Amino acid sequence: MNADDIKQAMNGVRAWNLAADGRSISRTFKFPDFIAAFGFMTRSALIAEKLDHHPDWSNVYRTVAITLTTHDAKGLTELDFSLAAAMDRLAA
Amino acid sequence: MNADDIKQAMNGVRAWNLAADGRSISRTFKFPDFIAAFGFMTRSALIAEKLDHHPDWSNVYRTVAITLTTHDAKGLTELDFSLAAAMDRLAA
Repeated sequence: MNADDIKQAMNGVRAWNLAADGRSISRTFKFPDFIAAFGFMTRSALIAEKLDHHPDWSNVYRTVAITLTTHDAKGLTELDFSLAAAMDRLAA
Repeated sequence: MNADDIKQAMNGVRAWNLAADGRSISRTFKFPDFIAAFGFMTRSALIAEKLDHHPDWSNVYRTVAITLTTHDAKGLTELDFSLAAAMDRLAA
């Protein structure tokens, strides 16, 4: 995706932050507790596996921090935005 | 736990590394693929919730990096070693 494509795609995932180098997006989610946080991760994992596109993510108790990028493309692709939008829906 | 207790407990979890400050232990697991890695995380999450003691962990595709510490105690407790040993068993 070029810079214009990315700018356009960011409109669909406004809670995500675009990295300064334009190669990844990230978002941190906070949930009520670990069960909710890991439940979100489990649901996201199923979507990720289905898309064959996986997050870089970390979890500390009720917090889940996620970075999405397409390693093969060394930057952002539509898969990153699809997964980001799916995660937004799961957390909503 | 004092330094002697920790030294003793480390004998039970030899694949884990003790942090230089003695306040946490960490281990990185590699699995064949994401399904195996997240499967391990799911099983570990159930144990963690049961122990009411949760890992700080991150996942990138088939790699899971884990740090265990007891935030309330600002250091290591027997809970950390229980969870570490349980994770070793799950990954074996």
